[in-house]
Amino acid sequence: MVKIDFLTIIDILGTLAFAISGASLAMQKKLDIFGVLICSFATAIGGGTLRDMLIGDLPVKWLTNELIILVILTGTFATVIFRKKNPRIAKALFLFDSLGLGLFTMVGIQKGLEHGFSAGIAISLGTITACFGGVIRDVLLNQVPLIFRKEIYASACIAGGILYYLLLKLDLSGAIVQAACILAIVAIRIIAVTFDLSLPSFYKDKQDE
Amino acid sequence: MVKIDFLTIIDILGTLAFAISGASLAMQKKLDIFGVLICSFATAIGGGTLRDMLIGDLPVKWLTNELIILVILTGTFATVIFRKKNPRIAKALFLFDSLGLGLFTMVGIQKGLEHGFSAGIAISLGTITACFGGVIRDVLLNQVPLIFRKEIYASACIAGGILYYLLLKLDLSGAIVQAACILAIVAIRIIAVTFDLSLPSFYKDKQDE
Amino acid sequence: MVKIDFLTIIDILGTLAFAISGASLAMQKKLDIFGVLICSFATAIGGGTLRDMLIGDLPVKWLTNELIILVILTGTFATVIFRKKNPRIAKALFLFDSLGLGLFTMVGIQKGLEHGFSAGIAISLGTITACFGGVIRDVLLNQVPLIFRKEIYASACIAGGILYYLLLKLDLSGAIVQAACILAIVAIRIIAVTFDLSLPSFYKDKQDE
Repeated sequence: MVKIDFLTIIDILGTLAFAISGASLAMQKKLDIFGVLICSFATAIGGGTLRDMLIGDLPVKWLTNELIILVILTGTFATVIFRKKNPRIAKALFLFDSLGLGLFTMVGIQKGLEHGFSAGIAISLGTITACFGGVIRDVLLNQVPLIFRKEIYASACIAGGILYYLLLKLDLSGAIVQAACILAIVAIRIIAVTFDLSLPSFYKDKQDE
Repeated sequence: MVKIDFLTIIDILGTLAFAISGASLAMQKKLDIFGVLICSFATAIGGGTLRDMLIGDLPVKWLTNELIILVILTGTFATVIFRKKNPRIAKALFLFDSLGLGLFTMVGIQKGLEHGFSAGIAISLGTITACFGGVIRDVLLNQVPLIFRKEIYASACIAGGILYYLLLKLDLSGAIVQAACILAIVAIRIIAVTFDLSLPSFYKDKQDE
Repeated sequence: MVKIDFLTIIDILGTLAFAISGASLAMQKKLDIFGVLICSFATAIGGGTLRDMLIGDLPVKWLTNELIILVILTGTFATVIFRKKNPRIAKALFLFDSLGLGLFTMVGIQKGLEHGFSAGIAISLGTITACFGGVIRDVLLNQVPLIFRKEIYASACIAGGILYYLLLKLDLSGAIVQAACILAIVAIRIIAVTFDLSLPSFYKDKQDE
């Protein structure tokens, strides 16, 4: 039924990583199992849902995508069961999360292209797809969204989106452009976390922060 | 104009209870009258609105349902005027709220069925209809949603939804299945509150909570 | 391409003021540049976006309105660059914000009329258009929405909307009715802020507030 190709596999891994990230944060806040489930879903599908609500591509796709729902449920219950933090799992999750970030951005950009939006809007839709699940999760958990405060996250999506458009102009094949966009986002994200990079602050007094 | 039957009456009572619950919480937070009004509306219609935005059944129905708007306004102003807590009114409200929970769940499930979604998605849509008004209210009031933290609330909706599907398979008449679903949710909710039941916690150290 | 008439100019000034207000609040909370950008956009287009999502007028208009996006980007970067508060700029911004409030209300009311909604709903849609950008901004910044707590803001929109309908019944020309509605909202807002008026509180103990 579901076509299992390379992108589908990345989609599943990314969704899984996003679901686990949502469930983990919810458990840190001591939510009950229902709260954990909702945060897990919101993180995994929130970005794509907001994108589809904005462009009117309704009903939103996860309502008819049972594979994705199964993946999210699996991620949620795995998080609840294996609570002990395992550094090796954490590293794998970070990789999946970065892959998901790259893939979700590209999916959003392509959806923007299909609907005939401009480059800037398509890149914005890609960034919304990749980042707003986390924003919705943080709003539900009553905290200022993490991506508004730290690390290079959304900026990796924007950079990858710009690369996507530059490569499109070079008349390269779609698959190569997609792969380059995803790889660039993953690379920027990994480099940013590895070297603890963040956007230059424009607040003068570091003490204030 | 408006067909007044049994379900309409429960709908009105449920909406009234939800509106009053929203207004009461907003008043506890000392919002001004406009804030109280918005919280009242968000609690009463937020769940159905989110459901209709997800499935693309737009414009959302309350925009053309003046009866519901009148009911919400009545609930809001009644809450502002009769602020003193009366235990008898509180008990009536809890009953209406439980009835609303049951009815809204069933309405959401049936809408899911009409749109041809799977059982799991239809039950999710029912739960969203019944519970997300409260989630939106809590987000607006800047607190972690109550239903993520305490009591059996969403789980009653899910249990009622599962019962609905099991009974549908038994070839019972629609009215009986609907009544059973609503009654089950109301009963679970009343039992949970009466005996102060909540979902089993999976956090080891009770002190941490 | 874009028709530059009087209403377009007010729209641009209002959007600019809303974008600057969003960016300023985000900077007070020490968000990074991406967070500032999102708050700026949310404040400027959030109300119209929610309105269009409710009535199903999708895709939302800013996805194809590059002028508005440019205006918001300009407002955001101007806020970041000129951080020092200048009382003359603050006064100009307050005027733009009031103009935006009036214009956005009227735009929302007219959209409601075009879709055949009742007067009450059209006024509500106008108020949502003008006020919910700020609500979404405050939710993202993790604070109880300002307009739920202080000053005459949404009530100015509602009053202007009622005036709009009263004047429509007098068979005046559309342009005059629109101008009167905008002017009334701007005037109420300026008077409220100048004389520090707010809605009468219905909480007895002022100390509690």
